[in-house]
Amino acid sequence: MTVEVHDSEVDIVIAALQPNLTPFFQAWQPFFSRFHVIVVKDPELAADLQIPSGFDVKVYTKSDIDGLLGATSINFSGHSCRYFGYLVSRKKYVISIDDNCLPAKDPAGMTVDAVTQHMVNLKTPATPFFFNTLYDPYRKGADFVRGYPFSLREGVECMLSCGLWLHNADYDPMTHVVKRNQRNTNYVDAVMTVPLGAMLPVSGINVAFNREVLGPVMFPGLRIRKEGSHRWDTLEDIWNGLCAKVVCDSLGYGMKTGLPYVMRSDAEAGKALESLKDWEGVKLMDDVLPFFQSVKLSRNGVTVDGCVKELAGIVREKLAPKNPIFAKAADAMEEWTKLWKSHGAQSA
Amino acid sequence: MTVEVHDSEVDIVIAALQPNLTPFFQAWQPFFSRFHVIVVKDPELAADLQIPSGFDVKVYTKSDIDGLLGATSINFSGHSCRYFGYLVSRKKYVISIDDNCLPAKDPAGMTVDAVTQHMVNLKTPATPFFFNTLYDPYRKGADFVRGYPFSLREGVECMLSCGLWLHNADYDPMTHVVKRNQRNTNYVDAVMTVPLGAMLPVSGINVAFNREVLGPVMFPGLRIRKEGSHRWDTLEDIWNGLCAKVVCDSLGYGMKTGLPYVMRSDAEAGKALESLKDWEGVKLMDDVLPFFQSVKLSRNGVTVDGCVKELAGIVREKLAPKNPIFAKAADAMEEWTKLWKSHGAQSA
Repeated sequence: MTVEVHDSEVDIVIAALQPNLTPFFQAWQPFFSRFHVIVVKDPELAADLQIPSGFDVKVYTKSDIDGLLGATSINFSGHSCRYFGYLVSRKKYVISIDDNCLPAKDPAGMTVDAVTQHMVNLKTPATPFFFNTLYDPYRKGADFVRGYPFSLREGVECMLSCGLWLHNADYDPMTHVVKRNQRNTNYVDAVMTVPLGAMLPVSGINVAFNREVLGPVMFPGLRIRKEGSHRWDTLEDIWNGLCAKVVCDSLGYGMKTGLPYVMRSDAEAGKALESLKDWEGVKLMDDVLPFFQSVKLSRNGVTVDGCVKELAGIVREKLAPKNPIFAKAADAMEEWTKLWKSHGAQSA
Repeated sequence: MTVEVHDSEVDIVIAALQPNLTPFFQAWQPFFSRFHVIVVKDPELAADLQIPSGFDVKVYTKSDIDGLLGATSINFSGHSCRYFGYLVSRKKYVISIDDNCLPAKDPAGMTVDAVTQHMVNLKTPATPFFFNTLYDPYRKGADFVRGYPFSLREGVECMLSCGLWLHNADYDPMTHVVKRNQRNTNYVDAVMTVPLGAMLPVSGINVAFNREVLGPVMFPGLRIRKEGSHRWDTLEDIWNGLCAKVVCDSLGYGMKTGLPYVMRSDAEAGKALESLKDWEGVKLMDDVLPFFQSVKLSRNGVTVDGCVKELAGIVREKLAPKNPIFAKAADAMEEWTKLWKSHGAQSA
């Protein structure tokens, strides 16, 4: 399906965790150049950023974050800095891609336009109530299979699109260490709606969402103790995705996963081994997932903001007693709804 | 992942809806010849079957069905005849492929061994509790992504594998008429577990299952008024798949969809148009799906047989008042559990 994508409705948000963004911007030039790009520099990063000319870029640094927000309990360092970009964007949609990712090639050798694919995912309906075995029914050449109720064929609005990665897959540090030579080469040519009630690990590597609607739930909430600037050190995006899925399920919105792919650069398995000795993430998800699988939001939370506030309260009640990390997550979630109200909830 | 497949554990079940099976068997020879093949001739089909030599085939006809079962409320005509094959098989696994399907080719031009792929799907674990964004985590080159709880990485037993179709897709009669020239050409190289609680339309075109465990729920239950020998006329497999999914969810088993593909021959859109005037299926699914989405089996039904009996009772209570077709489905489900006990529940 073809959709129209206007420059005025999309911001690209890039978290700069390394100073030299020249190869990144050069590679993405054909797809990014017509859009406004928000670069948020990791507050921990000292060196000056290198960004080539020819882009409509605005860079935000630690002083912008401190200046706008003042004292806040939310930690925007490392990968979490991109969320500041979500707050200062004024567009309906945001697309965010990690700075160690380049455009992928599809099996036919064509370079993948990740921007357009994300926008197709967001602008065509999602179908969370019944699984279509031929995947996205709105795709050219596809349709709803036999048995799909006609009353459900209009679908619902898609609010988040979770893209994937070739080459260096998005693994935890253990898997990186154990499978140090494994690379993801399997290009699966499909987009699908994640069914109602099913949870998925949304990765922040390559993601897009409807910022106007979903903004209040796009926060860095869960921060593990020794979080660094490697993806394998983070669970912030996984937590964020689970919160967003619960809210979407509650409000009748859809979430998709699959295309577009990006090409991730090599992992440094040696560094993953270093991370392991402090890594809390191993056992954390054994508490987190059952919580999200069973949580039910009341019918009163009819806005995303309302859902997040309710969810933060349930996190504090059910999860915080198990680990103080969850109390901090609940704090961050509540803080985010305030930040969003004062700084984020504005459109162009 | 490679699995060992023994001749002694698999039966191929073919419903013969047309007399000339020679091209079908010739095409499948490389994949079927080492297995026992059960052919069940549609009781409505008069002409003699043509089956080439070189196969270990046993053919069952109307007189075998009548002779074994006597008076039964289950109608085994049309596509439903294949279920008789499930009853008389003595193997642990059954694979069933429609007689208008030939082996597909993958994008590299290799002929797909649907038998082996189904057996890989059934013999490697399923992961219904959390969606793995890189699809089947047990596949060569894949793994569980970051955020996937380690406690869930052993998975659960997979009981049913729903394969797909290239060329002529599995549409309802309306879609066949409206999109008469559309052909499915998108080979999606993925297998995935359908998440817990998510329903899917299982097609009987290309399916495999663990007969020893799932046999009591593999029945032709829902029969629409003018059901013929075209797939678009049937909902028997959709109903069957929904029952099987509810039972698997209740007992903690998994169900997969995706590979393998088969190549389906052309649909005759003109005949689909003929079917339309009597087709009840259009509105039926609008009652059926919400029922299966909300039905909860008690913890007492710890066997598939127990689950089916309970489910039949709930169908009779909740759905039968809406349409007598559902009362007949409940009858058929209860009848099937008896048939299975006396004729099906035996292994080699």
